[in-house]
Amino acid sequence: MTEPTSGSAAAVPAPVLVVGAGLLGTSIGLALQRHGAEVLLADLAEEHLRTASGLGAGRPTAQGDRPRLVVVAVPPDSLGTAIGDALDRYRDAVVTDVGSVKAAPLAAVRRRIDEAWLTRYVGSHPMAGSERSGPLAASASLFDGRPWAVTPHDGSCPDAIAAVTALVRACGGTPLRFGPEEHDQAVARTSHLPHLLAVLVAGRLAGAPAEHLALSGQGVRDVTRIAAGDPRLWRQIIGANTGAVTALLHEVQADLAALMSALEADDGDGLERLLGRGVAGTAALPGKHGRPPDAQEIVYVLVPDHPGELARLFSDVGEIGVNVEDVRIEHDPGRPVGVVELTVAAELSGDLLAALEVRGWTAHR
Amino acid sequence: MTEPTSGSAAAVPAPVLVVGAGLLGTSIGLALQRHGAEVLLADLAEEHLRTASGLGAGRPTAQGDRPRLVVVAVPPDSLGTAIGDALDRYRDAVVTDVGSVKAAPLAAVRRRIDEAWLTRYVGSHPMAGSERSGPLAASASLFDGRPWAVTPHDGSCPDAIAAVTALVRACGGTPLRFGPEEHDQAVARTSHLPHLLAVLVAGRLAGAPAEHLALSGQGVRDVTRIAAGDPRLWRQIIGANTGAVTALLHEVQADLAALMSALEADDGDGLERLLGRGVAGTAALPGKHGRPPDAQEIVYVLVPDHPGELARLFSDVGEIGVNVEDVRIEHDPGRPVGVVELTVAAELSGDLLAALEVRGWTAHR
Repeated sequence: MTEPTSGSAAAVPAPVLVVGAGLLGTSIGLALQRHGAEVLLADLAEEHLRTASGLGAGRPTAQGDRPRLVVVAVPPDSLGTAIGDALDRYRDAVVTDVGSVKAAPLAAVRRRIDEAWLTRYVGSHPMAGSERSGPLAASASLFDGRPWAVTPHDGSCPDAIAAVTALVRACGGTPLRFGPEEHDQAVARTSHLPHLLAVLVAGRLAGAPAEHLALSGQGVRDVTRIAAGDPRLWRQIIGANTGAVTALLHEVQADLAALMSALEADDGDGLERLLGRGVAGTAALPGKHGRPPDAQEIVYVLVPDHPGELARLFSDVGEIGVNVEDVRIEHDPGRPVGVVELTVAAELSGDLLAALEVRGWTAHR
Repeated sequence: MTEPTSGSAAAVPAPVLVVGAGLLGTSIGLALQRHGAEVLLADLAEEHLRTASGLGAGRPTAQGDRPRLVVVAVPPDSLGTAIGDALDRYRDAVVTDVGSVKAAPLAAVRRRIDEAWLTRYVGSHPMAGSERSGPLAASASLFDGRPWAVTPHDGSCPDAIAAVTALVRACGGTPLRFGPEEHDQAVARTSHLPHLLAVLVAGRLAGAPAEHLALSGQGVRDVTRIAAGDPRLWRQIIGANTGAVTALLHEVQADLAALMSALEADDGDGLERLLGRGVAGTAALPGKHGRPPDAQEIVYVLVPDHPGELARLFSDVGEIGVNVEDVRIEHDPGRPVGVVELTVAAELSGDLLAALEVRGWTAHR
C-alpha cells in the first residue's frame, strides 16, 4: 500500500456519470457538486433518480451524453455486469466502482469484455456508509477525511489510476492504494469477520429469556451493534469474498477449539494467553487519525433522564472549554439517570472534573 | 426473576464490613456513606486500605468490631475462601459478595463450612465496573440506576435476602433476583460469550499487516473494545463459569460450522438466515431503561479537529435545547474532521438539523 500522489478536484475527468443513485452514489454526486463538476445520474429506480437530482446530486443522463468518468455504485451482485456495461458503452471513459469487495467483480468483468478495455477500469472502496440507505441518507460530506481504497489491477493504465485518485480527493476522501486481492484480505479481517462474529453473538441473544437479557450492559451492545446490518446486503458482500473470509473463519475455528480445550482442561494459563492476544489485537488498531493514542482519561458525569439535562451538560462543557476527544452515553435497563463519559487528555481531566462539580454535576474519573 | 420488594437505606444492617477495597468495594463504602452508614474496611494490601479510607469509604476494621453485614469484594478465585471466612468469623452477620459468577463460589463455600451457617449468605452481582481498577477509580455513584443481581440459594433466610436487597438499594442499584445457576447462565450469554468472541476477533488483528488495519472503521472498534479487559481478571471470571460458557461455545461452534458450510456451498439463502438471526438478536436487547426503543434518528455533524470546536458544538446543542438521547464520535484514521452522531427522537431531528445549519454546522441525517 502506498498513498497515490496528490490530485485536485480539477483533475477529475468530467462529466462524471454516477450509476446507482443510492446512499453512496448520491453522496458522490453531492460531494462533486461542491466543486461545480458536471454530474450525470442513472438508476433503474425512477424514484431514486428523481430524489437524487432533486437533492442537487446531478441531472439524469440523456441520449448523447459522453461521460469521461463513470462511477458504478450498485449492489455487490450487480457490479460485474454494471462495470462491464459502462466500459462497453462509454469507450472513452475511465470506469470505477465503490463496491465493498474488489477481486470477484474484477473477475466477473474479465469474463464479459475484451481485456484491452480493462485498462480503463480501476476499482475503489470508500470506508464510509450508514446504517440507513437510499439517496435521502446521502451527504456531500459523507467521505470527508475517510480512508478510500483505490485498487488498480495489473493492467490499469496510469491515467485511469490518476483519475480515480482525483475523484477520491475531490470527494474529500483519503486515497489508500491496494491490489484487489490485498484489499479483500484486509476488509475480510477488519470488516467481514467482525460482522460475522457479531452476528454469532447476537444470534445467541435471539430467543434467550427476556429476564436474562435484563443483565445486558454496554459491552454486549457494542459487540453486537453491527449485526443489525441489512442481511440482503451483507449476504452479497460476504458471498463475494468467501475465499478471504473462509480462511479467517478457519483460523477462528482453530482458536475456538483451543479455547474450548483450555476450558475443558481447566488450563488457566492457556486461557490467559488467548485473552492476552485479544488485548494485543485491540492495541494494534490505529488510534484516532492513525496516530498512536495520547494519554486520555474518562470523566463520568451523572445526568438525570429528563429533557434538557443533557443539553445543559453540553452547554456547561462548552463553557468550560476543555477539548473533549470522545463522548459516550451508557444505556442500561432500569437506570433512572444516564452516565455520560467524556474522554479528555489526561492532564485536563482534573480541571474538567472540578469545573463540572462547581456547576453542580456529580462526576468522577 | 422477580424484583424484591422495596427496601430503604435504613434497612441495611450496620456496621457494614467491606472486605476488599478495590474499585467495587471502595465504591460500595462511598455509596453507603452518602446515607451516613458506618462502614468498616479490610484489605490485604495496606495501601488500598489507606487509599479507600482516605477517600472516605470507611475506617479500617479493628479488634472487637462486630459487623452485621459483610460485603466480600475480592477477585473471583478468592471468593469461596473469603466468604467462608466471613461466615465463620462473624457469626451474627449476613454475608454477601459482588463477584461476577455465583454458583462456583457458593459450591466452594459449601465445601468449607457448616451448612447451617449458609443461611446467612446471599450472593449478589452489580452490573457496574470500569476498565480501570483499584480504589482510586471508585465512585459513590458507580451503581446509581444499574441492575444488580441478588442471588439467594435454596437455604438463604428471608432476613438475609432483605438485608442484601436493602444494600443494593442503598447503593443506588436496581435489584433483580436470580438463582445462582440462572444468574451464571444469563451472564454467560450477555457478558462472557461476547467477551470471548470479541477476543477472537481482536486476536485476528494481532500480527496483521498495519496497512490492512488502516482500513478499520468504527465497526471493528466497537466489536473489539471489551477484548482490552485484563486477562488475569477475565481468566478467573471465565474459569469460574466454564459450564454455562462451554454450553454456549458449543452452540457458537455449530453456528460457525453452519456458516462455513453455507459459504462453501455458495448457499446465499442459508447465509441470509444466519445474518437475519443476528438482526433478531440485536432487536431482543432491552432498550434504554428496559423500555422498547422509541423511533429515533441520528443527526451527523462534522466537527473540525481542533481545540474548542467540540465544546462549541456542545454549547450550540445546549442552546438549541433538543433532548439528545445518545452521542457518539467516530474515530477513523486519516480524518481531518470528526463526525459527531447525535441521536434524537425522530420527530425532532429536522428541527435540530435546521438549527445546527443556521449556526454554521455541516450536518446531515
